Amino acid sequence: MSRIEPRTLKGFRDLLPGPMIAREALVDCARGVFRSYGFLPIDTPALEYEEILTGKGGEESDKQLYRFEDAGGRKVALRFDLTVPLARFVAQHSSELGMPFKRYHIAPVWRGENTQRGRYREFVQCDFDTIGTESVVSDVETVLVIHDLLRALGFERHAIRINDRRWLARLLEVNGMSSRQGEVLRLIDKLEKAGHQAVAREIEALGYSAGSVQQLLTTLSDGTMQGFWVNGVSEQIAAVLDGALAAGVPEGRVRFDASIARGLDYYTGIVFETRLDDLPDIGSVCSGGRYDDLASLYTKERLPGVGASLGLDRLLAAMEELGMVEKRASTAPVFLPYFEESRLADYLRLAAGLRAAGIGVELYPEARKLGAQLKYADRRGFAKALVIGEQEWAAGRGQVKDLAAGTTREAPLWNASGAPHPELLARLRGSADVSPS
Amino acid sequence: MSRIEPRTLKGFRDLLPGPMIAREALVDCARGVFRSYGFLPIDTPALEYEEILTGKGGEESDKQLYRFEDAGGRKVALRFDLTVPLARFVAQHSSELGMPFKRYHIAPVWRGENTQRGRYREFVQCDFDTIGTESVVSDVETVLVIHDLLRALGFERHAIRINDRRWLARLLEVNGMSSRQGEVLRLIDKLEKAGHQAVAREIEALGYSAGSVQQLLTTLSDGTMQGFWVNGVSEQIAAVLDGALAAGVPEGRVRFDASIARGLDYYTGIVFETRLDDLPDIGSVCSGGRYDDLASLYTKERLPGVGASLGLDRLLAAMEELGMVEKRASTAPVFLPYFEESRLADYLRLAAGLRAAGIGVELYPEARKLGAQLKYADRRGFAKALVIGEQEWAAGRGQVKDLAAGTTREAPLWNASGAPHPELLARLRGSADVSPS
Repeated sequence: MSRIEPRTLKGFRDLLPGPMIAREALVDCARGVFRSYGFLPIDTPALEYEEILTGKGGEESDKQLYRFEDAGGRKVALRFDLTVPLARFVAQHSSELGMPFKRYHIAPVWRGENTQRGRYREFVQCDFDTIGTESVVSDVETVLVIHDLLRALGFERHAIRINDRRWLARLLEVNGMSSRQGEVLRLIDKLEKAGHQAVAREIEALGYSAGSVQQLLTTLSDGTMQGFWVNGVSEQIAAVLDGALAAGVPEGRVRFDASIARGLDYYTGIVFETRLDDLPDIGSVCSGGRYDDLASLYTKERLPGVGASLGLDRLLAAMEELGMVEKRASTAPVFLPYFEESRLADYLRLAAGLRAAGIGVELYPEARKLGAQLKYADRRGFAKALVIGEQEWAAGRGQVKDLAAGTTREAPLWNASGAPHPELLARLRGSADVSPS
Repeated sequence: MSRIEPRTLKGFRDLLPGPMIAREALVDCARGVFRSYGFLPIDTPALEYEEILTGKGGEESDKQLYRFEDAGGRKVALRFDLTVPLARFVAQHSSELGMPFKRYHIAPVWRGENTQRGRYREFVQCDFDTIGTESVVSDVETVLVIHDLLRALGFERHAIRINDRRWLARLLEVNGMSSRQGEVLRLIDKLEKAGHQAVAREIEALGYSAGSVQQLLTTLSDGTMQGFWVNGVSEQIAAVLDGALAAGVPEGRVRFDASIARGLDYYTGIVFETRLDDLPDIGSVCSGGRYDDLASLYTKERLPGVGASLGLDRLLAAMEELGMVEKRASTAPVFLPYFEESRLADYLRLAAGLRAAGIGVELYPEARKLGAQLKYADRRGFAKALVIGEQEWAAGRGQVKDLAAGTTREAPLWNASGAPHPELLARLRGSADVSPS
């Protein structure tokens, strides 16, 4: 038989159990935080009509779109983000949804990106947005969600940096650069990565004088809002900072940064980025902003909103680099070797009893030698093994091995009514106090 | 501006918060059960090389494949199930994975099916498999996982029906029907839906005598294994039934059913289906079986396994029909109206304190009239509202409204150290006993 080489497409990857366990934990954590603020889950199709997606994310994302004709001759494409599908979704269902509408959406997106930049062509996005209100309370909440999330993941040293597009627009106006605002903002967005000089040259190349470019960049690095009192913008940024403080975010974790611009065209108000103090080079792990009118391409209803996108893969990479991810390839805490073949029914009954008591247990499926089974358990990283051979079955006592510590303690297997003994449960849970309560 | 009609592709759908909350609950439940047996999560790309997917699921799934050429000229396709990607995955990574390997995979798949049959072209599959062992213990565990899962979801009346392909093969041999075994098995698989007579006619049409067809169908409906002692097959089915009983599955929830055949070619041992007693017509909600060699197309390593696939959408539909799904469109239990504008900092601080105590709370983003906000809360289905106006802020006491019962109770807002008062927490959690402990 001719075999097919088992391989994944360039830019695509399998997730093995270790990384997938870490991703599931991160997603669970994010969902828990989103839900604690009342954000609601939704899902949309991976495939959309091409016309829904093209022209929404700019020329680059059009180029990166996976598009084709389906068997029915429809022009279709895989979504490249979760924001454009959200716009389509709220336009289509706004009357059913009710406003304000707070949603989260955690799902894969596809972009035919240049993989040489270390990017994947399939990755999971994790977005949350509040649609249908212009209230600064939602801006505050967006910041709070980011902060809660990072804290829940174990980060203590991070900064959410906020700015306002209206302030930036006014700044460009004052410096005579309104005519090419989009391009200048995208260059400002590169300041940190490319540096002051390179960005200055590029803005000058758009046709602006060296003097006005210098003045612009000086104001940005100065980082104060003095002299730019624009329609209450300073008050709004101050309201976000105050709101974060009121909700208990420590001083400095949320701060004004004049150089935050974000590259996307659709932001019209507050914009933010989040850096980790310990890993500034990996860039922003959570970014977003306020937009006036997300769904105007699909509906005449005006739907302003504010939201952010969590960089799931980037955060995971950061947590790995900082040693915050426990290396494990097991999901059940207890390993139960099966080596007394005639006792299968007892192993099954005990495993079922432990699971009913809330203790996950993996029973090895083959009656092999104990050493081989413990080697398997070690490789998978189980915390505990419960070793029971014929002698232990007969005596009604098992050996609880702490696989990391290398210690073994005995415990009775059953209580009077034939359920797992409380002392056994306590030992397997790792409680210090093993006296039955 | 010319608008684009917001619409989804035929056969695709959006999931609004209500159904998505129910799906998330089901997926969480399934993950919890899988993990309690030590199954590990993995993920694979939605897109694969076309050659990986074609010819693996038969002619029909080839026809239903979404395939196209990517920008790099590669022939690619969207996966139509999670089993073929699993085969490719274990062939590619077997040395890293270690055997036995128990995995679960919950992810969308795509099939260009005829939507007139009420089917969707994108749906989530929820699979679990044990690879690398032929032990009957894994067959038993597969049955236990299905049973635990249904029980965890609240089902009490269901039957997991098991059969063995080897027994069926022997039965066909005895009746002289081995030559077209695959076709006859697919017809047997239709017995329940199409009925005895229709299936008899179709088997006869394959060229078999009415007498031998009658004898075959009589044996199948007789439902005993007498006379077909084949290489210990009966013992193996008995071992699965015994194992399930030993693990505490009530008698009758797992039973031998001679007519279970499953349509797929690759099964070689035990096969099973799961019916709900209260909704037999919706068909099997969880099906699977044992296969000798899943990955032979990609590797010379022999990788036997056993597994099953949970019909997520079918189960959700069943739970809805049986009134087992709580209709809710809120994820936080508590709604906090914001109507005293000058007190924003207090609302934010209290909401943060409640979340820190583990109580999810949605703060309305705009200082609108209380009535409008409570209408919003009612529509979203919040359990509780915490109403605090200027008078309540000044007095340090809030009103806890039980929105379903229509009752209101007062509670102090803060304790001495400025955190939410224990009595408030107890009222919001809905405990009967509200005395601080």
